[in-house]
Amino acid sequence: MYLAKIYVTYKPSILDPKGESIKSALHRLAYENVADVTMGKYFELKLTGVDQDDVAAQVKDICDKLLVNVNMETYRFEIEALEAV
Amino acid sequence: MYLAKIYVTYKPSILDPKGESIKSALHRLAYENVADVTMGKYFELKLTGVDQDDVAAQVKDICDKLLVNVNMETYRFEIEALEAV
Repeated sequence: MYLAKIYVTYKPSILDPKGESIKSALHRLAYENVADVTMGKYFELKLTGVDQDDVAAQVKDICDKLLVNVNMETYRFEIEALEAV
Repeated sequence: MYLAKIYVTYKPSILDPKGESIKSALHRLAYENVADVTMGKYFELKLTGVDQDDVAAQVKDICDKLLVNVNMETYRFEIEALEAV
């Protein structure tokens, strides 16, 4: 069993309206030292599988096909082995 | 300048409908070995500050007050120092 942690964020060229709203809210709350806020998505997938490289290839497929809008977003992921259940 | 990476997920007792939908979709796409999917939020904050512990305390405040619904969600964060801009 493997745990994949996937982080999805907007590409730098894409406007991130939620991040901007949060930054404004933080400034109103007197957190003036917050220079930049980015909001993205975070997925945790548990996958069964034998070979970690196979699982990594599969996670990449899943990101490209379903989880990530590759036109606007970019992602990175980490895979760690879990103890057998 | 510090970079805070914040990961927000539902508490285990809270139903995660988006995660369940994604799991079903992955099974339909023949990724049958996906055992579990959790969907959460991911924030990156850039903060100016001198002391890393102060910044960490501030990030915790920001999470509790604005970013996280502490009734339903749980979070963890990491802080790393960025080179001065």
